[in-house]
Amino acid sequence: MSTTPAPPDSAVRAFIHDQRSAFLSDLTAWLRIPSVSADPGRADDVRRSADWLAATLRATGFPVAEVWETDGAPAVFAEWPSDDPAAPTVLVYGHHDVQPADRADGWHSEPFVPEERDGRLYARGAADDKGQVLFHTLGVRAHLAATGRTAPAVGLKLLIEGEEESGSPHFPALLRQHAQRLACDAVVVSDTGMWDENTPTVCTGMRGLTDCQIDLYGPDQDIHSGSFGGAVPNPATEAARLAAALHDEDRVVTLPGFYDGVVELTDEERALFAELPFDESAWVRGAHSHATLGESGYTTLERVWARPTAEVNGIGGGYQGPGGKTIVPSRAQLKLSFRTVAGQDEEKIQQSLRTWVAERLPAGIRHEITFWGATRPCLTPLGHPALRSLTRAMSRAFGRPVRYTREGGSGPAADLEDVLGVPVLFLGISVPSDGWHAPNEKVELDLLFKGAETAAYLWDDLAAHWSAG
Amino acid sequence: MSTTPAPPDSAVRAFIHDQRSAFLSDLTAWLRIPSVSADPGRADDVRRSADWLAATLRATGFPVAEVWETDGAPAVFAEWPSDDPAAPTVLVYGHHDVQPADRADGWHSEPFVPEERDGRLYARGAADDKGQVLFHTLGVRAHLAATGRTAPAVGLKLLIEGEEESGSPHFPALLRQHAQRLACDAVVVSDTGMWDENTPTVCTGMRGLTDCQIDLYGPDQDIHSGSFGGAVPNPATEAARLAAALHDEDRVVTLPGFYDGVVELTDEERALFAELPFDESAWVRGAHSHATLGESGYTTLERVWARPTAEVNGIGGGYQGPGGKTIVPSRAQLKLSFRTVAGQDEEKIQQSLRTWVAERLPAGIRHEITFWGATRPCLTPLGHPALRSLTRAMSRAFGRPVRYTREGGSGPAADLEDVLGVPVLFLGISVPSDGWHAPNEKVELDLLFKGAETAAYLWDDLAAHWSAG
Repeated sequence: MSTTPAPPDSAVRAFIHDQRSAFLSDLTAWLRIPSVSADPGRADDVRRSADWLAATLRATGFPVAEVWETDGAPAVFAEWPSDDPAAPTVLVYGHHDVQPADRADGWHSEPFVPEERDGRLYARGAADDKGQVLFHTLGVRAHLAATGRTAPAVGLKLLIEGEEESGSPHFPALLRQHAQRLACDAVVVSDTGMWDENTPTVCTGMRGLTDCQIDLYGPDQDIHSGSFGGAVPNPATEAARLAAALHDEDRVVTLPGFYDGVVELTDEERALFAELPFDESAWVRGAHSHATLGESGYTTLERVWARPTAEVNGIGGGYQGPGGKTIVPSRAQLKLSFRTVAGQDEEKIQQSLRTWVAERLPAGIRHEITFWGATRPCLTPLGHPALRSLTRAMSRAFGRPVRYTREGGSGPAADLEDVLGVPVLFLGISVPSDGWHAPNEKVELDLLFKGAETAAYLWDDLAAHWSAG
Repeated sequence: MSTTPAPPDSAVRAFIHDQRSAFLSDLTAWLRIPSVSADPGRADDVRRSADWLAATLRATGFPVAEVWETDGAPAVFAEWPSDDPAAPTVLVYGHHDVQPADRADGWHSEPFVPEERDGRLYARGAADDKGQVLFHTLGVRAHLAATGRTAPAVGLKLLIEGEEESGSPHFPALLRQHAQRLACDAVVVSDTGMWDENTPTVCTGMRGLTDCQIDLYGPDQDIHSGSFGGAVPNPATEAARLAAALHDEDRVVTLPGFYDGVVELTDEERALFAELPFDESAWVRGAHSHATLGESGYTTLERVWARPTAEVNGIGGGYQGPGGKTIVPSRAQLKLSFRTVAGQDEEKIQQSLRTWVAERLPAGIRHEITFWGATRPCLTPLGHPALRSLTRAMSRAFGRPVRYTREGGSGPAADLEDVLGVPVLFLGISVPSDGWHAPNEKVELDLLFKGAETAAYLWDDLAAHWSAG
């Protein structure tokens, strides 16, 4: 266990300041590689991006930096052991593939020709996620330079996948295949953001996702509603009744056992959420919506961050063309997704849904349920020592208190927690205006360097406080 | 008021028997005209069909037979006044247009080249509706021949429209335009059928129809269910909640005031329905369905014939393609139809629906309701003297007791009751196996001549009993 005192902040900052141009030159080179994983025509670019990153990590000082094959696009793995055998090991997760981008979609400059304007770097992948991966090369070097170390205070591993923008189809298999080499005490995900430019925040968890399709079959063909309507079961009506019955009048999910095991928000976390400068009207506008509505007893942020939900993603049955058609439809379909939170059991939810649907449908309606899969939720409790380290490191870098958020979406971060069995921390410095998946994606350069600074402090703090937590 | 005794049945039968070949030759000529109103390329054929019918009615003896123009296909009107100025006037309704037909759809012979096989005449329009229109020319001549009259015992008018298979879009306007010339004491619709080959039945009413589309608008675009799900209103969920709330657990329609004014089934009518040789399993198979389901407290026949219903004809919203898509949809749509029965007020139902929908939707969901129109229900009470006349006439023709049915569908018959303000009788001899709108449509020739015989008796009976009822 290292007892090295935290390095003077000025040394870390000075190093990062000195390296600024060189770092941006590297990042710019990487951003010029259009590593669009969704485009088969860009497969070579995705591989070039992996090769570029592995070489850069070796140049940074990582003794090990390898390109790992998957059944899809390649990932990059790197490892830099600590010189303290008792130090914890941290795995940094990010991705080197990017969303598609076309100048014609409204870009003010070429998406793969990075351009610095007003302290921002504009390019596809600047924030999501190349900028946030690469700041770790600067962070670890600042950490070493400021402390005089030759190896990081924690064992450092990086796993940078190449298919995140395509739904990470081979990621769980990759994790299982390399579980031994990926073994660690905590994961740091750098693929998220903070509340806003002025509010450094740490995300403490993501929701999981279980989604499915329910097909309902009634008459073998559409039939005349005059001759038969009102006397035979109608699959469109039954689809509607299922979808409607998923929530009660308080918009609480009615599926039996759905809330079993849910890790409830603590009073502390609710109070911390409530301290965030949240403008609900602006949030509703950002949601392209016209009101809020959700589980009674919870605020909007609590609903999207910390409460499990059931959502109708699609419903269809019978005639949907122009005008009317007086039929009893033959079939109907429901697409449902459930966002889950820590403590819930996806398999039990799926089983409960199967039973619930079967029990509710009348005779004469046949059904099939197809589950598309499940992404697990993840949550690191506020009191976790690693979370405290991250909070302190970020607070030092930003010079102001750090707030806590969660993420309502679902992602491969949960696979890391699930397969590796360790807590996941989120160190992200992107802001909502960065335009992920949109034209004119950018990253705020000052925040990028704050990210590197946070990492530099974090490795020291984790080494110092890991077992003390 | 005529007091002529009913003609001996044998005279009517003998006349019809003698005319059999000539009648079939006429019918065959008419069926060769492919008067498909839905096909703009057949507009000339529809007109040729109208001209053919007007000429045939003149040849039958109608002093007046005219082609009436509409904004669509032409109708045919004919009139043969009674020689008794006190006699009631009856208007016969039918249509001379037919459904499309293509040999390749599974016809065993050309649909517009009538073929007689095993006592049946196969052709598009044989039963629906040319055969049933044309038997009236034979009926009135048999009536005259058997009674020695030179004019029918009732004033006889015919209105044979040319767009019934296209939804009768110009029919109400036609009725209103010519209301004075169409004035009558009762309407006889010959465009329906009887229970089966062995069970002569009289239909006493049809359900009405009011249908609409409800469009629901939530977010201005599909939004991410992870970022926003569970905290903003979802139009697909709201569409489902509306559709589901239309019925309670007993499948009773919940729309406020929906049942106001409903003419309830009498014990007598329920008992008469129950006497019909109804095979529910066969009915379910005929409905291509796998169970019955409907308003509790009523039998299947009562549900489709005499109870008002609400049906979801279509529902759609959000993602309906393959796999899953984790969105909160921007829009959803419901297509609803209400079958109505005598005593209900379509305008009140529409107004109730407007209020009910507006009250049930949460803030943030905008909606529009579009009504496609309304067809009125019609019902002639069992005790009505004209219905008694028809029952007696049909019973004489078939030599067995007549049962009562209703029709669950909706049609222009109700417009006749509505615009002309007189009761509607249904004199139809088609049977379920006739294949309306299907390949190999046919009419049973024996039943066709029973139809003519019924008409021959009916004019006498109505004249004799009209005011005595």
